[in-house]
Amino acid sequence: MVKSVLSVILVLVAVSSVFGKKYIPKSGKRIPQTLSKGWGDQLVWVQTYEEGLYVSRTTNKPLMVLFHLMDCPYCTALKKVFSEDKEIQRLLDEEFVILNLEYETTDRNLSPDGQYVPRILFVDPSMTVRAEIVGRYNNRYYSYEPNDTKLLLNNMKKALKLLKTEL
Amino acid sequence: MVKSVLSVILVLVAVSSVFGKKYIPKSGKRIPQTLSKGWGDQLVWVQTYEEGLYVSRTTNKPLMVLFHLMDCPYCTALKKVFSEDKEIQRLLDEEFVILNLEYETTDRNLSPDGQYVPRILFVDPSMTVRAEIVGRYNNRYYSYEPNDTKLLLNNMKKALKLLKTEL
Repeated sequence: MVKSVLSVILVLVAVSSVFGKKYIPKSGKRIPQTLSKGWGDQLVWVQTYEEGLYVSRTTNKPLMVLFHLMDCPYCTALKKVFSEDKEIQRLLDEEFVILNLEYETTDRNLSPDGQYVPRILFVDPSMTVRAEIVGRYNNRYYSYEPNDTKLLLNNMKKALKLLKTEL
Repeated sequence: MVKSVLSVILVLVAVSSVFGKKYIPKSGKRIPQTLSKGWGDQLVWVQTYEEGLYVSRTTNKPLMVLFHLMDCPYCTALKKVFSEDKEIQRLLDEEFVILNLEYETTDRNLSPDGQYVPRILFVDPSMTVRAEIVGRYNNRYYSYEPNDTKLLLNNMKKALKLLKTEL
């Protein structure tokens, strides 16, 4: 009796391994990619610039666009403090539409002083790029380093203030 | 002794709950969004059309663009069979660059007969939209239903064949 139950279980296991499984790559199981790419797993990110502009317009929230690369050490360093800063994360979550991109868009307004990473720009719901909101570096206006989190937070508040006073 | 150890632990817990934690939304912890959006968690998706075109060109693989919406029942039904079809998933993983989008791009070539969901288009590494690869519906050429998986698989193979014979 035990034997026959065991053999039935064995057959079931064999059958399910042929028919029941979902696709697994030859190189082994992968961890699903996240839209946050590590810049804030608890935040709701838009996927594309078109989506960001649309959501910004319909929610009347400013859009933050963050250009980065996975293999850029400056980005990795900024990402660590950015994702761990509760105040930045809270404000982004509650008051902003957020987008992180590894590839440039066709819109040149998003690269006022060139294409480099990391680079952070703010866009109004009126679809105006707020090129006047800059970091502390004269050669790369929209760049931030890990010890610039306070400045970034202030710039986020500036984007919100401009929105309220001008629109 | 036990008491003092306990009180130290209590203080540590209290301190860590104030300083140590990462940001958690007021509405509670969220499940991080995936780039696959359920269309194949084990596949490597590109995020934007620009990225898709770039990766397609550099890898010489055709790009599949899948338009969908999270709250469209036709999409959900197609997604279930699409994500569970091992042959589709394997071929996509090994031979295609893949993109799923909930928002339209600015490129009109991706909507030859209008903007609707679900809608699947193939693009060559030469950046030519393969508008001749269609499903079985005359009113919506690029639409597929759950029982069209074989046709979709054949169309994927057609995209690969065209690539090899024409380029």
